[in-house]
Amino acid sequence: MTSRRVCVGVFDSGFGGLTVLKALLELSPDSDYIYFGDTARLPYGSKSAATVAKYALEATQYLERNGAQLLVIACNTATALALDNITAASSVPVVGVVEPGAACAALVSKTRRVAVIGTEATVASHAYLKALASRGVEAEEKACPLLVPLIEEGWIEHPVTEQVARIYLDEVFSDRESAGSADVLVLGCTHYPLIRPLLRRVAPPRVKIVDSAESTAQVVSDQLRAKPPGAASEQERRRVSRQTFFATDSVAKFQHLGARFLGRPIDQVHHVDLRE
Amino acid sequence: MTSRRVCVGVFDSGFGGLTVLKALLELSPDSDYIYFGDTARLPYGSKSAATVAKYALEATQYLERNGAQLLVIACNTATALALDNITAASSVPVVGVVEPGAACAALVSKTRRVAVIGTEATVASHAYLKALASRGVEAEEKACPLLVPLIEEGWIEHPVTEQVARIYLDEVFSDRESAGSADVLVLGCTHYPLIRPLLRRVAPPRVKIVDSAESTAQVVSDQLRAKPPGAASEQERRRVSRQTFFATDSVAKFQHLGARFLGRPIDQVHHVDLRE
Repeated sequence: MTSRRVCVGVFDSGFGGLTVLKALLELSPDSDYIYFGDTARLPYGSKSAATVAKYALEATQYLERNGAQLLVIACNTATALALDNITAASSVPVVGVVEPGAACAALVSKTRRVAVIGTEATVASHAYLKALASRGVEAEEKACPLLVPLIEEGWIEHPVTEQVARIYLDEVFSDRESAGSADVLVLGCTHYPLIRPLLRRVAPPRVKIVDSAESTAQVVSDQLRAKPPGAASEQERRRVSRQTFFATDSVAKFQHLGARFLGRPIDQVHHVDLRE
Repeated sequence: MTSRRVCVGVFDSGFGGLTVLKALLELSPDSDYIYFGDTARLPYGSKSAATVAKYALEATQYLERNGAQLLVIACNTATALALDNITAASSVPVVGVVEPGAACAALVSKTRRVAVIGTEATVASHAYLKALASRGVEAEEKACPLLVPLIEEGWIEHPVTEQVARIYLDEVFSDRESAGSADVLVLGCTHYPLIRPLLRRVAPPRVKIVDSAESTAQVVSDQLRAKPPGAASEQERRRVSRQTFFATDSVAKFQHLGARFLGRPIDQVHHVDLRE
């Protein structure tokens, strides 16, 4: 019997989800991936739940129509605001980034108190707070709306980015000397892994960093291992894994900026107009 | 004969255009205004020309259907990338922000060299460079993508915003001692008037600041005076000017953030879904 490789659909409002794809390519290099970046309507992080849910549904249904057998919502805002809607509308399994990040943080925290940084919309949804509370862990959430524009400006190792991160984290870890204070920092936005070394310097040394992108890739990889797609044909086994990229705005910009997040060049991007 | 007041349609991707409306309300308080903020798809400044043109056309046609007799494109990016498309598709006069800003700068500059700051898309379009060149003035354009997020974060008088402005302006005015260097700074984004005092401190003292929002309001006001709408009825004269606000994302957020730009509370905002 000829069997296809599993095709994983990865969705984000823009480029951040490429950090999840990067981690997936390391853990499950044999799957095929189709990535959808809704770059014409980014960012989602400052928008309302209704708008984000509408956009996310259009994008994930596009991925499903194009062959995705498993959907990864590689965007904290879309996961926080629309995971239930997406799961209800999809006929394939859906994995978001909040549960894997919260599960890993709960595993790592000794003080049972965790700090979460993310976009305005992610924080306002309290998705992490709820996911952590169900595991008996308290959460302190902090919106950091300037970090995404700073990362997209390419100011990765820059004194301004460090100063901004310090202002935000000082509010989160103001009780940094207290014994019962947060001992984990969750990167609740898929852009933040790009400034992980900077955040490592700025956060108190006792605080462990949990990256939701990495945790999600681990969960997806476990699911792929648990349900192998059956014996692949000789032809299937021989060909390399395929990655296909779709974006709703400029493909040139996606290639240029996306390569920074993926850590490798992106050869081709297909433009999609969701209204066509 | 009963005559209606002139209804002016003001369009922006979000909140910045409210600085133009603020100036219009001062110069032409007797007109009616309908404002459209395409907040579900903002920002336009980092997006491609094709995407911006499509969005801007949908918004301005909405304003025309809702009674606008004159359209003000109160967004530098939309003006720079889509003014021709909008003008071609409209049956009413259209005024953008680039020409009035460039005309004022050309009038003020003695060195015939002007610096323009704006979004990535505005700068990439070279709309100001062309508008100034046609007036015999050289332009130095600089994209400042972090200023909009900093202003929207409310960091108006903040050391980080000052540091970022200094980094950007130092590049523009690196030849600040030279006699032939720019003596005018054009605020080529309708967000920037909010940090005008800060930019005043950071720019070299000899540099005059020209605000495109103000210049545009002056041009519109002149047009309204040149073509009075005819004698108004007694009833029309008695009622106060009406301002109606439409937004494509959260109306609560529009009221909250918009008040900062307009400098007065916004009582009511109507939600619009352009796909309905």
